[in-house]
Amino acid sequence: MRVLGVDPGLTRCGLGVVEGGGGRVVRAVAVDVVRTPPEAEVADRLVAVADTVEAWIAEHRPDVVAVERVFAQHNVRTVMGTAQVGGVVALVAGRAGLPVAFHTPSEVKAAVTGSGRAGKEQVTAMVTRVLALAEAPRPADAADALALAVCHCWRAPMIARMAEAEARAAEATKRHRARLKAAQKAAAPTPAVPKAGR
Amino acid sequence: MRVLGVDPGLTRCGLGVVEGGGGRVVRAVAVDVVRTPPEAEVADRLVAVADTVEAWIAEHRPDVVAVERVFAQHNVRTVMGTAQVGGVVALVAGRAGLPVAFHTPSEVKAAVTGSGRAGKEQVTAMVTRVLALAEAPRPADAADALALAVCHCWRAPMIARMAEAEARAAEATKRHRARLKAAQKAAAPTPAVPKAGR
Repeated sequence: MRVLGVDPGLTRCGLGVVEGGGGRVVRAVAVDVVRTPPEAEVADRLVAVADTVEAWIAEHRPDVVAVERVFAQHNVRTVMGTAQVGGVVALVAGRAGLPVAFHTPSEVKAAVTGSGRAGKEQVTAMVTRVLALAEAPRPADAADALALAVCHCWRAPMIARMAEAEARAAEATKRHRARLKAAQKAAAPTPAVPKAGR
Repeated sequence: MRVLGVDPGLTRCGLGVVEGGGGRVVRAVAVDVVRTPPEAEVADRLVAVADTVEAWIAEHRPDVVAVERVFAQHNVRTVMGTAQVGGVVALVAGRAGLPVAFHTPSEVKAAVTGSGRAGKEQVTAMVTRVLALAEAPRPADAADALALAVCHCWRAPMIARMAEAEARAAEATKRHRARLKAAQKAAAPTPAVPKAGR
């Protein structure tokens, strides 16, 4: 499975492509950061990011795009720009027919370092190690994009198994309820005249 | 000037086209709401909104797209979806070569009703009146999209004048500083040997 990880942002947007084989072994294919000038119009900055993501999808042919799920916890102005970029990336992926998976920052940190509260340096260190890179990817947005892609490679089978288990459980509940209803019907004969209001 | 106003949202996205002639007279050209099912994938919902906005730009040929500027004050989950749609709309407009203007909800309310704290009903009532509509546009997202477009028609000349005044002021400051520097240079002769580190 080939994953394009995107750490969305207007000033710096991290892009990282990782190839996973089902187990824990992951390989880095490409990594970079798209920068757009803060003095430019928002629409032009979004176009620049969208164009780059489209070019990466065409070049690296990922099977899925993993995007950081944004929370409005920090600077509101930054968060809104980040959410706008996240929306644009999801649109570009959707138009390319690719599934889009959102992971929260703590899910990414937990997947890569074992702790959902790990710092930026720790995430960069672990990404460098698990991908066996010659040097640490810089800036942090590049490392974060790779971490997102690694996170998706490792979480995807678990997410799929959970979805399957949930579907099975829902099916079992449905069957159980149907049996219960049939048993109740068989035990208590229906009154000849139904009660009012039922 | 023809304006496409967009009240961004994933579940309901309001679209309204208004034609303004420079004065206070405005005319409604089209209004509608794009709905996407909450159970669908976010990427698919964004694609549906983007497709519709593209179709509206092609059909109604606006000169500018006015989008509501989102703030993270209410429900965080909703706000993130709204910001994602706002980003997608700005991208579509940017790719169509159209300028994008963002107005805050209170700017829109103040422009249309005279009060930045006006309620939804008041905004709808004023939009219905200033556009001389036979009936009030429903749902509120449709009325809000028209209000955004009207707001842009009325604020655009003022925004342009302010930008011009600011540019003139910056130019005057620059000229003044240059004159001051020249005067200082003329008054104090340059030393024969420049100081170290300058």
